[in-house]
Amino acid sequence: MIKAGIVGGTGYTGVELLRLLCAHPEVDLAVITSRAEAGRTVSDLFPNLRGACDLAFSEPDVNVLTTCDVVFFATPNGTAMTLVPALLDAGVRVVDLAADFRLKDAAEWQHWYGIEHACPELLGEAVYGLPELNREMIRDARLVANPGCYPTAVALGFLPLIEKQLVDPGQLIADTKSGVSGAGRGASVGSLLAEASENMKAYAVSGHRHLPEIRQTLESVVGIPVGLTFVPHLTPMIRGIHATLYARLSEPADLQQLYEERYIDEPFVDVLPAGSHVETRTVRASNYCRLAIHQPQGRDTVVILSVIDNLVKGAAGQAVQNMNLMFGLEEELGLGAIAVLP
Amino acid sequence: MIKAGIVGGTGYTGVELLRLLCAHPEVDLAVITSRAEAGRTVSDLFPNLRGACDLAFSEPDVNVLTTCDVVFFATPNGTAMTLVPALLDAGVRVVDLAADFRLKDAAEWQHWYGIEHACPELLGEAVYGLPELNREMIRDARLVANPGCYPTAVALGFLPLIEKQLVDPGQLIADTKSGVSGAGRGASVGSLLAEASENMKAYAVSGHRHLPEIRQTLESVVGIPVGLTFVPHLTPMIRGIHATLYARLSEPADLQQLYEERYIDEPFVDVLPAGSHVETRTVRASNYCRLAIHQPQGRDTVVILSVIDNLVKGAAGQAVQNMNLMFGLEEELGLGAIAVLP
Amino acid sequence: MIKAGIVGGTGYTGVELLRLLCAHPEVDLAVITSRAEAGRTVSDLFPNLRGACDLAFSEPDVNVLTTCDVVFFATPNGTAMTLVPALLDAGVRVVDLAADFRLKDAAEWQHWYGIEHACPELLGEAVYGLPELNREMIRDARLVANPGCYPTAVALGFLPLIEKQLVDPGQLIADTKSGVSGAGRGASVGSLLAEASENMKAYAVSGHRHLPEIRQTLESVVGIPVGLTFVPHLTPMIRGIHATLYARLSEPADLQQLYEERYIDEPFVDVLPAGSHVETRTVRASNYCRLAIHQPQGRDTVVILSVIDNLVKGAAGQAVQNMNLMFGLEEELGLGAIAVLP
Amino acid sequence: MIKAGIVGGTGYTGVELLRLLCAHPEVDLAVITSRAEAGRTVSDLFPNLRGACDLAFSEPDVNVLTTCDVVFFATPNGTAMTLVPALLDAGVRVVDLAADFRLKDAAEWQHWYGIEHACPELLGEAVYGLPELNREMIRDARLVANPGCYPTAVALGFLPLIEKQLVDPGQLIADTKSGVSGAGRGASVGSLLAEASENMKAYAVSGHRHLPEIRQTLESVVGIPVGLTFVPHLTPMIRGIHATLYARLSEPADLQQLYEERYIDEPFVDVLPAGSHVETRTVRASNYCRLAIHQPQGRDTVVILSVIDNLVKGAAGQAVQNMNLMFGLEEELGLGAIAVLP
Repeated sequence: MIKAGIVGGTGYTGVELLRLLCAHPEVDLAVITSRAEAGRTVSDLFPNLRGACDLAFSEPDVNVLTTCDVVFFATPNGTAMTLVPALLDAGVRVVDLAADFRLKDAAEWQHWYGIEHACPELLGEAVYGLPELNREMIRDARLVANPGCYPTAVALGFLPLIEKQLVDPGQLIADTKSGVSGAGRGASVGSLLAEASENMKAYAVSGHRHLPEIRQTLESVVGIPVGLTFVPHLTPMIRGIHATLYARLSEPADLQQLYEERYIDEPFVDVLPAGSHVETRTVRASNYCRLAIHQPQGRDTVVILSVIDNLVKGAAGQAVQNMNLMFGLEEELGLGAIAVLP
Repeated sequence: MIKAGIVGGTGYTGVELLRLLCAHPEVDLAVITSRAEAGRTVSDLFPNLRGACDLAFSEPDVNVLTTCDVVFFATPNGTAMTLVPALLDAGVRVVDLAADFRLKDAAEWQHWYGIEHACPELLGEAVYGLPELNREMIRDARLVANPGCYPTAVALGFLPLIEKQLVDPGQLIADTKSGVSGAGRGASVGSLLAEASENMKAYAVSGHRHLPEIRQTLESVVGIPVGLTFVPHLTPMIRGIHATLYARLSEPADLQQLYEERYIDEPFVDVLPAGSHVETRTVRASNYCRLAIHQPQGRDTVVILSVIDNLVKGAAGQAVQNMNLMFGLEEELGLGAIAVLP
Repeated sequence: MIKAGIVGGTGYTGVELLRLLCAHPEVDLAVITSRAEAGRTVSDLFPNLRGACDLAFSEPDVNVLTTCDVVFFATPNGTAMTLVPALLDAGVRVVDLAADFRLKDAAEWQHWYGIEHACPELLGEAVYGLPELNREMIRDARLVANPGCYPTAVALGFLPLIEKQLVDPGQLIADTKSGVSGAGRGASVGSLLAEASENMKAYAVSGHRHLPEIRQTLESVVGIPVGLTFVPHLTPMIRGIHATLYARLSEPADLQQLYEERYIDEPFVDVLPAGSHVETRTVRASNYCRLAIHQPQGRDTVVILSVIDNLVKGAAGQAVQNMNLMFGLEEELGLGAIAVLP
Repeated sequence: MIKAGIVGGTGYTGVELLRLLCAHPEVDLAVITSRAEAGRTVSDLFPNLRGACDLAFSEPDVNVLTTCDVVFFATPNGTAMTLVPALLDAGVRVVDLAADFRLKDAAEWQHWYGIEHACPELLGEAVYGLPELNREMIRDARLVANPGCYPTAVALGFLPLIEKQLVDPGQLIADTKSGVSGAGRGASVGSLLAEASENMKAYAVSGHRHLPEIRQTLESVVGIPVGLTFVPHLTPMIRGIHATLYARLSEPADLQQLYEERYIDEPFVDVLPAGSHVETRTVRASNYCRLAIHQPQGRDTVVILSVIDNLVKGAAGQAVQNMNLMFGLEEELGLGAIAVLP
């Protein structure tokens, strides 16, 4: 059994990690911390866990956390970087679900996140936890930077085209739509049901923190600067990301075959038959990414449709997938639940 | 392994049965029938099952169905009763998720369902599949009538009070709220998102088919006629039933203790601590019924709050629970998934 | 033209008042205050008002407010009572949409609202602004206490029965369902879309502030103590209240005729034909209350269905209706908009 | 007073036309037809109109319709073209809210709509009813083809760029998101709340009927073939379209100024300040189109955000706007309602 801890488990990423880890056959969840809720039982805050989780939240304590084999950070950005060095020194392996270790460049990180990085020397070591791209490095990683939700959906959609250099990397567009849980469990007016329901809007068009993360991933593959227009939208639903991706094809190709072959061995990427459309509900509460490939009217603009559950493949599920790889377990272990539809 | 078949698996009860049975460790799902979709793969109709279910729908064929150990009917009312006698004769055990075998009185059944019953001689034998009331009879049953969604939530809420004769059985009120999936997957104007979203309404106030079913259950316990006012409402959500139950207490009692003791050994009934409120989302996609007990201002009107997922404990999950009992398996087998929240 | 002011216009009651008053043919909206948003244009906060409202929020200033003919308070509970005396002294008439002047008993007010009342001497003078009950007093009132949303829907539903003493006043039940806008525009976790969507729950079953308000209204009619069980529920929609009311009939009566006659001259109460069900969407963004009368199975339990838009007839619309009465205008003026469906 | 008729008023476009025309100060709504609902009162089908509309549906009868000054068709595609010639011959003016007269080319129409056009000789005369483009022609038109919902949002967003030839017309992308009411009031599984809620999906990526309509409008301005990738999405809400438009700028320009100047005199197009984002709820139940202009990171990809209410500016509201123009009324008459928020 892997002894696991969670730092900061009171948000949506946290409760989803709890749902997955409490049911994982090889995990012993030993500790979950929260300064604000210390002393309160987990199932009091999240009654869906009644009968499945006996833990109570505790104050974060490095001495306790270092007894774990792996620690997940489900904290706001900027927290993990203050604790990770001590944990790594103690031999604990870390999966950070926040953004602290996603960007390789400390200056770029500071630009987008607004604070100085506490341990820039670890940015190079941290492995970007997209198994479909970095599986082998993840197996040996001490520190995994779990990808953001949008970056996961967008990268999996663009990867085959970018890897084969079939499209102009200077003219990529990602029009993405997210459920409101992506904004987190913090109290905010904009995420109220009375504000966000029966409403559709784009936000952060001038620049979103996931833009440099996606760009870095694509550039690591193609090796030259990528021109990406990234427009996120808030959609009136709880879970799900639908990424609609546009690129200009530079030469003819059998795109359906390309995608099917690229992902044929991937346990959590499912390429739908030609002519299909994807729906976020078909991945709800599951770790799948589903893709559909289109080339409307045979023109040179490719349209890729990519859906994930932002809390699973876009956060907690991918974190567990990474943990499975890090500890030599079967990659799908604890992640086999079928999507909940309707 | 139990060889199982499903008759009529294209509705919401069907897809939920598929989700549960495909993941059940002791079930081999061998056949699923649908006249309308015969020949189509299940995962084409329900893409959430891609990778989890290789079956295609087939025409219903008694010769094939009789090779099963158990057959589930997820058909419209009035279908199961035409096939069940032949299956029972062949030694197949049956769980009917429709209403064909729920009422003991053939005339009453005909009154509420508008057609003559095809095999009234089986109504006496059929066991009403509420494990919390009829567990022992279910174990030995050839034919289980799986309870309706409202009746499950209402009966579990009223049972302790009725069993102890603590309330006036002539003045019961059940104000129930259901998600729209309860209306089924058939095309209908009233269930369109543009009609049912951002809307709340009561319906069938003059008389709903679940009224006689609830009354029969409560009367089987108390032994005298029950006066029940049952008002169902349509709520703008997909899944979930919230039953708010009112009764007049005839003598003082510690209701919290009563409920906790009544359900202490029940794997799927969870009585919340005093002062709590239940939420449908805490049972979403799970087989739990959660209850909260109130006596506002210490007056003699008791208020019981009861929630279930109408597609799980109110349909497919309870059907699997019944199957587990019928075949001597652990009652929770295949039903351990934690509710999906948020 | 009536010169009007709004104190505290940044919540949902405020924006709805703005929508109605900006379009009212006899109102000149002169001032709207907000400490938090002082200096910001109204249409910047609420872009639906772009082109319809040129005002900016200003700091509350008694000297400015006293230049108005009428001032509406759309403030949190406890604010109006600190400003109202000065306004009344200056000859300004006041409609308070908060709860400060709804209860006649200062001790009861303090019990439910947790603070001492700042001007208990005005509680007797304040007129409870339910036109269907107190129309003539409203015409002459200096100070109108605009009813709460639940109390409006519940009182209009029970009134005919109570006035004719046809039911047992000791056994009333109001099972009420509200959209989330009723919780206000303040940031709170419980009202997030990701918490409140796809969910149904009761709350405050042990005692809600609207309970004494409803009780006071009904007792003012029947003259004896009323026993009311009041259970509010949160429904996953933005607007609308559906009240389902239960009472025990003490003698036979033609209830349909009773309700139709009681409300025949009321411009904003609509009794549906016998056998109908009401839907909240049929009153969305309108000032109507729609009612349906049922006596299921001919038993002695009466079921009244009552719907309003909580922000219109339950708040801003009723406030404008009261203003129209206070200033001798046609009661429907500015309130004629047809409900928005779908 | 203008005597008006509606053919086919039982869908969402119909009920919205009824809401607007019943409240229009210069319209006498004389007749509304429906074969399916003939004899039924309008307010029985649409209870939001109780007290506002006394009409009953009648069988369509040319002799009755020809007594009208104007007839609106809110029928399925292919119906208006069978009746329009007779009405025009009788001197009745027509606004068709369906697609029968939107395309100039009969062969193209037949290609996309699958039936032969019944009166191709009228396609040239019909005026495409986008007032912001064709205002003067609409004034004199006998027959107005009311634009589709997507085409309205997309055309208003692209027009300034196309008119000034600032972008490459061969590389336009319109990523559009619509509420479910756009699919109409017909019973269909895909539009059920339990299917469409908590879900996001693209559809008709290979080719949607609004594609040739948008292309025709843009080509009529630019004079050369337009390359447009058009991807519609279904969003879990009732009303609203959010169009996110992408184009490649061919030369530097002050786009904010361009849009503000282009639409400065338009009563129903509102260009938000630089840096803003639009929200569909700010135009709910109103006739506005709101636009925001972005050029992320100063790159050459322009992003235009455009929102309308698909049932108002995208259908019934624009039809009334066209009628106002055709009959020499003030263009805003009957369309002044402020958007309903929240």
